[in-house]
Amino acid sequence: MTSVSIIGGSGYGGGELLRLLLNHPQVEIRQVTSRSHLGEYVYQVHPNLRKRTQFKFSDPAALEPVDILFLAQPHGQAQHGIGQYAKLAPKIIDLAADFRLHDAAFYEKWYGEKHAAPEWLAKFVYGLPELHRPEMATANYVSGVGCNATAGNLALLPLVKADLIDLSAPVVIEVKVGSSESGADGNAGSHHAERANVIRTFSAFGHRHTAEVIQEMGVTNVSLTMTAVDLVRGVLATAHARVKPGVDTKDLWKAYRAIAGENPFVRVVKEQRGIYRVPEPKILAGSNYADLGFELDEGNGHVVSMCAIDNLMKGASGTAVQCMNLMMGWDETTGLEFAGLHPI
Amino acid sequence: MTSVSIIGGSGYGGGELLRLLLNHPQVEIRQVTSRSHLGEYVYQVHPNLRKRTQFKFSDPAALEPVDILFLAQPHGQAQHGIGQYAKLAPKIIDLAADFRLHDAAFYEKWYGEKHAAPEWLAKFVYGLPELHRPEMATANYVSGVGCNATAGNLALLPLVKADLIDLSAPVVIEVKVGSSESGADGNAGSHHAERANVIRTFSAFGHRHTAEVIQEMGVTNVSLTMTAVDLVRGVLATAHARVKPGVDTKDLWKAYRAIAGENPFVRVVKEQRGIYRVPEPKILAGSNYADLGFELDEGNGHVVSMCAIDNLMKGASGTAVQCMNLMMGWDETTGLEFAGLHPI
Amino acid sequence: MTSVSIIGGSGYGGGELLRLLLNHPQVEIRQVTSRSHLGEYVYQVHPNLRKRTQFKFSDPAALEPVDILFLAQPHGQAQHGIGQYAKLAPKIIDLAADFRLHDAAFYEKWYGEKHAAPEWLAKFVYGLPELHRPEMATANYVSGVGCNATAGNLALLPLVKADLIDLSAPVVIEVKVGSSESGADGNAGSHHAERANVIRTFSAFGHRHTAEVIQEMGVTNVSLTMTAVDLVRGVLATAHARVKPGVDTKDLWKAYRAIAGENPFVRVVKEQRGIYRVPEPKILAGSNYADLGFELDEGNGHVVSMCAIDNLMKGASGTAVQCMNLMMGWDETTGLEFAGLHPI
Amino acid sequence: MTSVSIIGGSGYGGGELLRLLLNHPQVEIRQVTSRSHLGEYVYQVHPNLRKRTQFKFSDPAALEPVDILFLAQPHGQAQHGIGQYAKLAPKIIDLAADFRLHDAAFYEKWYGEKHAAPEWLAKFVYGLPELHRPEMATANYVSGVGCNATAGNLALLPLVKADLIDLSAPVVIEVKVGSSESGADGNAGSHHAERANVIRTFSAFGHRHTAEVIQEMGVTNVSLTMTAVDLVRGVLATAHARVKPGVDTKDLWKAYRAIAGENPFVRVVKEQRGIYRVPEPKILAGSNYADLGFELDEGNGHVVSMCAIDNLMKGASGTAVQCMNLMMGWDETTGLEFAGLHPI
Repeated sequence: MTSVSIIGGSGYGGGELLRLLLNHPQVEIRQVTSRSHLGEYVYQVHPNLRKRTQFKFSDPAALEPVDILFLAQPHGQAQHGIGQYAKLAPKIIDLAADFRLHDAAFYEKWYGEKHAAPEWLAKFVYGLPELHRPEMATANYVSGVGCNATAGNLALLPLVKADLIDLSAPVVIEVKVGSSESGADGNAGSHHAERANVIRTFSAFGHRHTAEVIQEMGVTNVSLTMTAVDLVRGVLATAHARVKPGVDTKDLWKAYRAIAGENPFVRVVKEQRGIYRVPEPKILAGSNYADLGFELDEGNGHVVSMCAIDNLMKGASGTAVQCMNLMMGWDETTGLEFAGLHPI
Repeated sequence: MTSVSIIGGSGYGGGELLRLLLNHPQVEIRQVTSRSHLGEYVYQVHPNLRKRTQFKFSDPAALEPVDILFLAQPHGQAQHGIGQYAKLAPKIIDLAADFRLHDAAFYEKWYGEKHAAPEWLAKFVYGLPELHRPEMATANYVSGVGCNATAGNLALLPLVKADLIDLSAPVVIEVKVGSSESGADGNAGSHHAERANVIRTFSAFGHRHTAEVIQEMGVTNVSLTMTAVDLVRGVLATAHARVKPGVDTKDLWKAYRAIAGENPFVRVVKEQRGIYRVPEPKILAGSNYADLGFELDEGNGHVVSMCAIDNLMKGASGTAVQCMNLMMGWDETTGLEFAGLHPI
Repeated sequence: MTSVSIIGGSGYGGGELLRLLLNHPQVEIRQVTSRSHLGEYVYQVHPNLRKRTQFKFSDPAALEPVDILFLAQPHGQAQHGIGQYAKLAPKIIDLAADFRLHDAAFYEKWYGEKHAAPEWLAKFVYGLPELHRPEMATANYVSGVGCNATAGNLALLPLVKADLIDLSAPVVIEVKVGSSESGADGNAGSHHAERANVIRTFSAFGHRHTAEVIQEMGVTNVSLTMTAVDLVRGVLATAHARVKPGVDTKDLWKAYRAIAGENPFVRVVKEQRGIYRVPEPKILAGSNYADLGFELDEGNGHVVSMCAIDNLMKGASGTAVQCMNLMMGWDETTGLEFAGLHPI
Repeated sequence: MTSVSIIGGSGYGGGELLRLLLNHPQVEIRQVTSRSHLGEYVYQVHPNLRKRTQFKFSDPAALEPVDILFLAQPHGQAQHGIGQYAKLAPKIIDLAADFRLHDAAFYEKWYGEKHAAPEWLAKFVYGLPELHRPEMATANYVSGVGCNATAGNLALLPLVKADLIDLSAPVVIEVKVGSSESGADGNAGSHHAERANVIRTFSAFGHRHTAEVIQEMGVTNVSLTMTAVDLVRGVLATAHARVKPGVDTKDLWKAYRAIAGENPFVRVVKEQRGIYRVPEPKILAGSNYADLGFELDEGNGHVVSMCAIDNLMKGASGTAVQCMNLMMGWDETTGLEFAGLHPI
C-alpha cells in the first residue's frame, strides 16, 4: 500500500479528496490535517464520511513522512511550505494555485504579488492529465488546476489541438458556477438568502484562472466572464470563438471525438433528442467526467464550445487523484468510478 | 402626513418595512438608522430600493422626534432602549421579540434571561391584528410577532375560536421555513453550499416562538418543530390536533370561513383541482396574506391545519404596517396591496 | 374608466398582465378569456389573485368591444385573429411574437413560415418604450417584446445610442434564463427533477429573439446564446462587444447614465461595495426595472454589458402596461410601482 | 457471474438500479426493457451512464431467462405479470408497490382496488433488510419498499424494537420529499416554475405508504403527512410520538445505537456542534445510508424521531440491491459503497 497524507483536509477540496482516497484500493491514508478543526472527527466536518472513517484532523506541524503528500490548503500557503513538504514526501500533488503557472513574472502579473518560491515553478507539471499525461508518468510534483480554467481549457482543447481556431483571435469564455467554488468559508454574498436564485456576474474579466487558459492553450486574447448561478456543484464553460476558414461541422466532430477517444474521462454530448442534448454539470456531481459539446454557425464561423464538469471533482480533487494514478503507473480511472446521478 | 422613523433599518425586517413605508400614502419617513451601515445609501443594502429613495442610514444616536417609531433591531435591544424611545414618539411598534410576552416570568422561562424592562410588558398589545384588532385602535405600543408563531397561531385560530379542539390536549406544529428567517447576518450553516437543498430540523421543540402560541392560543401542550428547507421567503405551519367528539368537516369549513370573512388578509385555500389546492408560501412572497387550509380525518378526529405566510411580511413587517394602520384609524390594508406573484 | 379585456389569460404572461391591470387605477377589466380553463375562477389558475377578483375565464368567441384589447396568446394566433380583434377595439397591445418584426421576409427567415397577416406588420410599433416612446403616444397597435430580446436590446442600447461600438462587428450575447420562460405548459425538460440545478444551453445561436435585436439595434453580426439556470423568473443578458478606438470607461458611464436618466425603469448598477454590485434578476421579480451595468477592459476594448430584467414584467406584461400608459397619455409608471423584494 | 435483467428501466428507480448493477462485481446485466424508449441507448435517458454502457432498451416481450429479475415498472403492472415473470427467473425483486402488503383485504383498503394476484402476496418478503434480514437469506421473492414508508419505518424502528412507545397511541409522521418521488413522467404540478420554491402538502393523511408502516411497525393510529419541498432527491421523515413513562434520553441512545450497530447502512446523527447535527437527506444523494436522530422532551415524553434517506437509494433501488446481496449470500454492502457527497 502507498501511504498518503492530506494537508488542509477541512476545506471542500480536501474533503472530496479524502472521500476519494478512502475508497482507493491502493493507498492508505496516514494523516489529514486541519488547524481550525484540530482534534475533531473528520465526519463532523464532512458528514458524508460518518461510519466510513474514524480519522481526526491532526496538526500539520506533526506530519510524518509518506509516499505522497496532497496539499489542499487555501492559495498562497503551499509556496511557503514547499521546501519543508518536499522533505516529507518524494511525490507531491498540490490542489491550490501556487504552482500552476510556470513563469514567475506571469504569476506576478495575474496574482498581484511576487511568488515566494519561484525556483519551484519549473519543477511542477500542470496537473491536467488531458494535457500532460506523458509527463506525469515521471513527475514528482504536480500542480492543481483551476476549476474554471479546466472547464475553459477542455472546451478549447479540441479546437486548439486540431488547429481549428486562430490562437490570436478574440475568445470569450462565459463560465457559470455553483456556490461550492467560493470554498467552505463563504462570505457575505454566499448567505443563502442572498445567494439563492442568483445570476450574478462576479467577474466580467480578469479572473485569475484566465492565466491557466493562456498558458495551456496558447490563446492570447481570451476573457473569462464568471457568473454565479443557483447550484452547489458544477461549472459550465461556454467558449465563443471563430473557426478558421473552411472548417465545418464534420471537422469539429472529428476533433471532439478524438479528444474523447484519447481520454477516459472526456465524453462528447451532442444529441438530437431527449432532455440531455448538451453538456450539463447537473448530472456530473461526484463524477470525474468532463462533458464536451459544440455548435457551429456555418454562416459566420462562430463556434460555441461547451465543457461541463464538477468543480470539486474534475475541477479539483478528482483530477488530483487521476494525476496520482498516472504518477504511480496505476490505472488512470482507479477510485474514480462513480458515474454520477440521474436525476439529482 | 404622519412622520415615521425606523431604528435598525439594515436588517431584513427593517428593509421590508422601509419598502412598505416608502409606498404608503399617509406616512413620511424621516430617518432610517443603522450602525453597521452608517452613511451608506439604503439601496446599497436593499438593492430593490435603488431609484426609489436617496436615504442614507443615519445614526441611531441622532434620532429626532416623530409620530411613530418602528423598532427593527435584533432581539434584546428594544427592552434596553424603550425608555428613551418613548420620549421620541407617542406611538411605537416593535418588530423584535422584546415585548411579545406579557409576563416577565414567562419571558424568563423561554428566553433564559431576565427581562430588562418588565414594567413595559403590560403596555404592549401583541401585534397580530387577527387576534387583537380592537385593542389596536387605542394602543400606543404594539409588539412584533414571531413569524413562526404567527403561522402557528393562525393555523390554530379557527380551531380555538370555534372551540373545536381541547386546549389541553397535545398539539404538534411542524413549521418549515426559508433562509431569510435567520436574518441578514447568517451563520456557518447558512452558507449557500451548506444551506441549499436542505431539509434540516434545527429545533425539534423548545423554539422561543412556542411561547407566543401558548400565550395567544391558550394551548398548553404544544410543540413547534422547526425545519429549514430550500426557500428564501416563506413559512408553512402544519398543526396536528384532535377535534372534539362530533366535530365534522362542515364545522371546520364554517370556522375557517368565519376567520377569513373577518380578516382582510386571511384566505381559505382548499381546492379540489388545479395545482394550488392548499396553502403555500411560494405564492405569498411580498404579500401580506395568511393562507389557511385544513383536512379532517373523520375516522379518528385528526385535524391537519395549515397556515402559509411570507415570514417578512405577515410574519413581520407587513403585519407591523397593518398594526400601524389600525392604530391610526386608516384602512387596514393601506400600503399592503401587493398580491404576490405567480409563478415565482 | 378605460375598458380592457385580455385574450389568453391563463398563461404566465396573461396572468401577470391581469395582476397588473387589477391594480391599475385607470382601467376596468371586462373579460379574461381562456379556452382551456373556460369557466374556472382565474384564481384557480393564478392563485395569487385569490380574494382579489371573482373573474372567471370566459370564451374568446364571446368577446365584447372594449377600449383596449390585450392579446396574450401563444405565438401564431394573433396574426390569424387580428382582423377580427381590430373590430373589437381601437387599440391593441399584443404580447406574442406575431407583430414584432416589420418585414415579412425577415419574419419568414427567423420563424420558418410565412406571416399570415403581413399587411399588419407595418401598423405595429415595436413595444419597447425605451426605444419607441414617441411613436407610442399616437399608436393604435403595439407589439409585444421578446424577453431575451429586451434584455439584449437594453444591454446594447447605451453602446449603440452613444455610437460606442461598430454595428457590423461581432457581438455575442449570453442570456441566462429562468423556467417561467418556457410558459405555463412546460415540457419534458421542465419537470422539476430534470430542470432543477441545471446550467443547460438550449440554444447556442439562432434563437428567434435574435431577430428583434438585429431589427432594433442594427447590429448585424450578433448571436444570442440561451442558457437555462435554476430560477423561475429572471433574465440576465451579458453582451460582449468591442468598443471603438479611444472609448474609455468615462464614455461608458456617460452613455449608461443618459439612458437611465431618460427612462424611469432603467437603472445603472455598478457598485464597488456590498453584495449587489452588478445587475441581477434576483431582486427584480415583480418589478418593471431593467438594471444595466458594464465593465470595460481598457487594454483590448472588450466591453461586457449586462442587463437584468424580470422576463414576465419588463420582458412581457410590465412593458405592455407601460406601453398602454404611453398610448393613453397616462403617467408611464402607473400600476408599475412595485419595487421588487429583498431578499427573495 | 449471476445474470440479471431489469423490466422497466427507463424510470428513475430503474435507472438508479441499472447504475448500481453496472458497478456490481458479481452480476452481469442481460436486458433492460422499456416500451416507451424501445431501441434507444439507455444513456439517452439516463445521461450519467454515457460511456458506461452501450445497452439499448429492449422489448419486455422478448425477455430471456435470468438468475434474478428486477421489476421496476409503475405500480399495478407486476401483479398482472408475476406468473409469467416467475417462469423467467427463480428470484424476483419487485420495486413497485404490488407485493408489499401481505393481506389482500388490507391491500384493497389502501389501494382502492382488488389485488390481481392475491395468492402471491404471501410469497413475498417485505423488502427492507433492517426488518427482514434473516428471511431474505432463503427468499425467492422480495417486494419493494415505499420510500416514505422506509423513512417512517426506520424512524420508528428503534422506538418499537426497544418497546419505548405504546403501539396503539397516536403517531404523526411528517414527511418532506423531493421531486424525484413523483417519477420520471411528472405532472402539471411538477413543472419547475410551479414546483420550485414549494412547501406543498400534497397529502395530509391517507397516503398509501401508511399501510406499510402499519404492517411493519404494528402502530395502529398513525398518520403520514406528505409535504413536497424544493429538492430533487431525498426524504426526511419526522415521527412524533410519546414514550412510555420512565423512558429517558439514555434509553433512546441505547435503542438507536443498537439499530445502527446491527445495520451497516444505519447511522445515528446527533451532534452538539458543527453544521450537520441531525439527519439530513442533503448529504445522502446516491448513498444507501439511513440516518437516524431523535430528541426527547423529558417534560412531557414527546419524542421526535427523524430518518433521512435518498428516496431512490435506500428508499428504492439501493435497498433492492441490498436485498439481492442478502438473497445471494453476498456481502450486504457490495455495490453500495458510495459515501455521498459534501457539499452538494
